[in-house]
Amino acid sequence: MIVPIHLENQTAVKYDVIIDTLPKLLFNRKVVIVTNTTVSALHLETLLSQIECSELNVVTIADGEEYKTLATVESILDELFEHKLDRKSLLIALGGGVIGDMTGFTASLYQRGIGFIQVPTTLLSQVDASVGGKTGVNNKYGKNLIGAFYQPEAVYIDTNFLTTLPKREFSAGIAEIVKMAVMFDESYFNFLCEADFREKKSLEAVIERSVSLKAEVVNLDEKESGIRAILNYGHTFGHVVENETNYKKYLHGEAVSIGMVMANRLSVELGLMSQAQSLLVKDLLIKHDLPVDYLIEDVDVFYNKFFLDKKAANNKLKFILSIGIGKHVMRDDIDASILKKVLKSFSEKLN
Amino acid sequence: MIVPIHLENQTAVKYDVIIDTLPKLLFNRKVVIVTNTTVSALHLETLLSQIECSELNVVTIADGEEYKTLATVESILDELFEHKLDRKSLLIALGGGVIGDMTGFTASLYQRGIGFIQVPTTLLSQVDASVGGKTGVNNKYGKNLIGAFYQPEAVYIDTNFLTTLPKREFSAGIAEIVKMAVMFDESYFNFLCEADFREKKSLEAVIERSVSLKAEVVNLDEKESGIRAILNYGHTFGHVVENETNYKKYLHGEAVSIGMVMANRLSVELGLMSQAQSLLVKDLLIKHDLPVDYLIEDVDVFYNKFFLDKKAANNKLKFILSIGIGKHVMRDDIDASILKKVLKSFSEKLN
Repeated sequence: MIVPIHLENQTAVKYDVIIDTLPKLLFNRKVVIVTNTTVSALHLETLLSQIECSELNVVTIADGEEYKTLATVESILDELFEHKLDRKSLLIALGGGVIGDMTGFTASLYQRGIGFIQVPTTLLSQVDASVGGKTGVNNKYGKNLIGAFYQPEAVYIDTNFLTTLPKREFSAGIAEIVKMAVMFDESYFNFLCEADFREKKSLEAVIERSVSLKAEVVNLDEKESGIRAILNYGHTFGHVVENETNYKKYLHGEAVSIGMVMANRLSVELGLMSQAQSLLVKDLLIKHDLPVDYLIEDVDVFYNKFFLDKKAANNKLKFILSIGIGKHVMRDDIDASILKKVLKSFSEKLN
Repeated sequence: MIVPIHLENQTAVKYDVIIDTLPKLLFNRKVVIVTNTTVSALHLETLLSQIECSELNVVTIADGEEYKTLATVESILDELFEHKLDRKSLLIALGGGVIGDMTGFTASLYQRGIGFIQVPTTLLSQVDASVGGKTGVNNKYGKNLIGAFYQPEAVYIDTNFLTTLPKREFSAGIAEIVKMAVMFDESYFNFLCEADFREKKSLEAVIERSVSLKAEVVNLDEKESGIRAILNYGHTFGHVVENETNYKKYLHGEAVSIGMVMANRLSVELGLMSQAQSLLVKDLLIKHDLPVDYLIEDVDVFYNKFFLDKKAANNKLKFILSIGIGKHVMRDDIDASILKKVLKSFSEKLN
């Protein structure tokens, strides 16, 4: 006997990303804000002044990627149970990507899923992490290896939060913006080369375009079975760089910057991209004080770490490569020898 | 600026529940079987003999509800990372509800989701836990409070596995079957009163009907926002019974049996069900050696534990009640005084 199960009534996901000064937020339900010690001191008061709800609590965790663990998520869950949240309750993530990823993941787990809202306070999380529903934590095997696809109810992007952001973190956000332009849109790339990121209107326009591009991609491929993987341009290399430096030396965006330079060198090596185009990208990254060099100590060790990446399905390495500004290709047929040659060029000198 | 996100391409979920002798299973991917020490000794060999795949590993955990924790899930995840599963890999749950819930939950978390298949080996998991996509673990605040909605790729129900099932556990499975009949189908209830569960064809027919009824409900309401809550008939009371007895004295189905008797007494008290009808249900439960009595030591303590239940949205208690065999109602307007009166009747004597 066979009973066919067909869940045909699953509803499509809809939410808005609002790029503006944070409005008044009214909720007829229990709300818990999840933030960290650093962001709390800078911006919690602003958020609190905008919220009205039936019961409000704040969970504050330590600041840092090293706390992005299942243990931290479990401790947040414990606090939610102590506050007796129910299935209609809401979490609000106030912070950068780590807070957003962990809060979304926690929301997905609490009683098998409650609502959450993103209020990203870093440029990186505003343009990248807050859209798309990827949530999760790290473990000893790598980054974001445990998690869920879980969408927020809304994302509020207020560039006023960025005024307190350290310059280095601001630059790290620009790396993900450059990524979107190099992959999808040459005119956006040219706009970025000219844009003044210190000017509010200009910055909002940059963010709007980046979020829209990302939304289009996620829309086509929520679960990352195909086109969404393109967002990983620079990340296959970047994740290994982060892993090798124990997630301490580089911010994520900085590692992605290095990763894009590595990926572009592979593109050039394969004849997919001109040396001149790769230099245009590198120059834009350098203009924003992003790192573009990395000394690989052991090529084989670096190479082997590719295989722990989530993208290495059936042990086949997939690389997202630029084939000129605004255009991309996915390649899973690259010889180990060519890859190692490119890696070797990073092991010899800083260039 | 507002960027609307609309994920309209989410695909509907489809899978089959196959009620038959376990067939040959061929997979062109890595497979990990998750089971426990008890089931492994009894049935692992049978399952292994039916599987062909590119790489096969087995993760064996301790047997018991007390191991249904986030810590166990994390230890399973660690083993999966050691085996270098990728996103195309597959988990197979071989065991009862605890194994199924934890394996499905683990599959949902590993790299944000890999496939899993259920091979339930208890009657309870065959008729109930293996269909519907509820996965998760317990914590100190209660049962199944952390988890995900995550659907299997297929469910293989082989009644041959039940030949080794202790009689007490077999009866516990019957409780969930009775639940489905009392809620949805009077003719099925009458069939159950006559059925010989020891006869293979008869048992398969019983399972098929129960799975089909559950599939219909889950189909209408995957995320338990409405009608699916009806499957919690007997559970609001039963969960408290399990909680009060530290999940040790009663099997889940036994607690549900007690919970249904309690819910029916509430129905009778409210004039929703006749005394005679409630006795028909009780008699069927007794016929299968299921417990129908429970001594409540402190009515207020018992009552307050209702509010930790996931169904208590906004602190409003919802009860799923029978209004005659095969018919149900959801009520969230029941006076605390009436509830406590019913609870009190269980505190005075075993009847």
